[in-house]
Amino acid sequence: MRLLNHIGRLYTATAQGVLEDAALVIEGERIAWVGPAAPGPPEEVRLHIDGEVGCGGALVTPGLIDAHTHPVYAGDRMAEIARRSAGASYTEIAAMGGGIGATVAATRQASARELRVLVVERLGAWLRGGTTTVEAKTGYHLEREGELDALSILAELGLDPALPRVEPTFLGAHAVPPGKAPESFIDEVVTWCAPAAAAGARFCDVFCDEGYFSVPQSRKVLAAGRRAGLVPRIHADELAHSGGSMLAAEVGAQSADHLLYADGDDARALAEANVVATLAPGTALAMGRMPPAHTFLGAGVTVALGTDHNPGTCGATSMSLVIALAVAAFGLSVDEALTAATAGGARSLGLKDRGAVEAGKLADLVVWDAEHEGAFAWSYGLAPLKVLLGGRTAGR
Amino acid sequence: MRLLNHIGRLYTATAQGVLEDAALVIEGERIAWVGPAAPGPPEEVRLHIDGEVGCGGALVTPGLIDAHTHPVYAGDRMAEIARRSAGASYTEIAAMGGGIGATVAATRQASARELRVLVVERLGAWLRGGTTTVEAKTGYHLEREGELDALSILAELGLDPALPRVEPTFLGAHAVPPGKAPESFIDEVVTWCAPAAAAGARFCDVFCDEGYFSVPQSRKVLAAGRRAGLVPRIHADELAHSGGSMLAAEVGAQSADHLLYADGDDARALAEANVVATLAPGTALAMGRMPPAHTFLGAGVTVALGTDHNPGTCGATSMSLVIALAVAAFGLSVDEALTAATAGGARSLGLKDRGAVEAGKLADLVVWDAEHEGAFAWSYGLAPLKVLLGGRTAGR
Repeated sequence: MRLLNHIGRLYTATAQGVLEDAALVIEGERIAWVGPAAPGPPEEVRLHIDGEVGCGGALVTPGLIDAHTHPVYAGDRMAEIARRSAGASYTEIAAMGGGIGATVAATRQASARELRVLVVERLGAWLRGGTTTVEAKTGYHLEREGELDALSILAELGLDPALPRVEPTFLGAHAVPPGKAPESFIDEVVTWCAPAAAAGARFCDVFCDEGYFSVPQSRKVLAAGRRAGLVPRIHADELAHSGGSMLAAEVGAQSADHLLYADGDDARALAEANVVATLAPGTALAMGRMPPAHTFLGAGVTVALGTDHNPGTCGATSMSLVIALAVAAFGLSVDEALTAATAGGARSLGLKDRGAVEAGKLADLVVWDAEHEGAFAWSYGLAPLKVLLGGRTAGR
Repeated sequence: MRLLNHIGRLYTATAQGVLEDAALVIEGERIAWVGPAAPGPPEEVRLHIDGEVGCGGALVTPGLIDAHTHPVYAGDRMAEIARRSAGASYTEIAAMGGGIGATVAATRQASARELRVLVVERLGAWLRGGTTTVEAKTGYHLEREGELDALSILAELGLDPALPRVEPTFLGAHAVPPGKAPESFIDEVVTWCAPAAAAGARFCDVFCDEGYFSVPQSRKVLAAGRRAGLVPRIHADELAHSGGSMLAAEVGAQSADHLLYADGDDARALAEANVVATLAPGTALAMGRMPPAHTFLGAGVTVALGTDHNPGTCGATSMSLVIALAVAAFGLSVDEALTAATAGGARSLGLKDRGAVEAGKLADLVVWDAEHEGAFAWSYGLAPLKVLLGGRTAGR
């Protein structure tokens, strides 16, 4: 057993709140004991401690959880991003060979080995920033073999002890690929759900919105996913008030994501159906519209946060930056934002073994270069001093 | 002379725009030649080249310029920031000993030596992020000796070759210190202007806004500063439409800053008087109100950007993050934001020797971990591969 000692503030993300001058004991990959640094763990625990890490009064939190990412892609779209920022229309972007089609083309051309290297690099960046669990979607192949390969890569890398834990999501219904009609493409995607589950997917996601997939089409995919054992999650009400939140409530999705156009009725429906609202401040800023975060919290909806890392709009992998943006742009308190990035993320991913500091949970922990959680709002990207993944020091 | 070769894209921040496949020659601390990598510099220049740095096709820009910062302080206010995010009022914050008064107390207690160490650490962070010039204000002593010491620290550190260049601003009129009345405090500050200039200040700034200093009080300080040789700049129209922009135009300030409540009339006045609008996206987000950036650009106002680094709201030192926020939150194009963070910053500081890549300018340059400037918007904090300060490799 190892003692993590002299924690100035331990943000538990439980009803315990913050413990000052705390310590905790790690046994194997789990937390065995949490309590005050003085007097420290009880005698029967102390006897088994064979190592101690001092935190020098620093802030310790659960490892952060990024509940919405799209990391499996090749190529980049920086020139397109610059032109779009200058007002180029989607038609102009498409004419210059840009948009999601550009990423699909580049990703299909890359070998599984090349993709794997790119995803390893990206996951490493997440971990260095203090994120220990990453939800990760496919959706840039939009053809059977590529989607399944992407899931295999994610499932395999999620077991690599040098990388964060990964929760793979099958997002075959991310967009309509070139040369296909939406309805017949959906019928194809439906047939990929069972092999997707076999390849390692835990979730099935769909982009339910104007210009993407309709509510009936989305329902069809999520039902097929459910039959294959995949838990539904959904891109909902991001571009318009198009019915995604209500569908999420209807099918009992684990999470509804983005929700820029969701309203009070949607919030109540999500709360009743126990659907987590997973919000992405970077994307909301880029879209110029904020989700009704306080309405969700007021209705009793659990809020989670994500970077929405993707090749077209956002390269961020830092959940501590996302916390700062959620405070600045959504008006969340630091406590609400940090809970959303830990316990909320665990709920969004249906994981009971992490996202909080208490005996029995995984010892996924971050010692931060700060003494108080207010530093998340101040720093716009707080640096970890040490990241523990299942009790082991991660990274360098 | 040294050749910086194989620049994939050279963002000049001049009418030249972006040069692809470029190179440049550095002589001493200045840029001597800029042009295409092939055929490269003319024979008479090439003869004198005795070193070459390859950029491997990367993006190169002028060193970024942070045109608004408050880096001379001790103590931290993280607990206050967390409480404020949860809705604590200014009265409650003051009752817990928070607010600017807390920073003033901690800063007055610190020795000049302690403060110097803190400022050195902070300036190092700016440089590592690719910022080669930092405007830096005093204003956390609010008493004569402390304000002058702060200016001496800034003036001295600005000459340290391991740190970014510093442009010191005397901000004695930052807030009314405890136990003083605004009018008599202003009369004191007026008498500090000449010694402030002697201690190294280039600019005189004042917080002209509701709850801070009135337009007549601000005018008095800026006039006294001008008599002492200090160029005026001003915190204007940040908390209310309180007349700061018009005062900036009246006195011919170099820059009016924040401007969240400025309108079209203000924009026209700033344009006519050649006052730069220095905007801080982090602060605008935290205040929940955006400055009329497009109105400024449309009226012909030069826009600059700043982190507004300060102990109470924002610890960011990354101007590449500020560029991303200016694109996301202000709707600037990448080109507009990057110009604001380079050429605009130089204008905001009245410096003709930097902020652009052309022969004769200082060789303050950043080689970025990117191939296209669109990466500034995508990355939310782009990493430099190499920072050159007056032609020398800075930092590690």
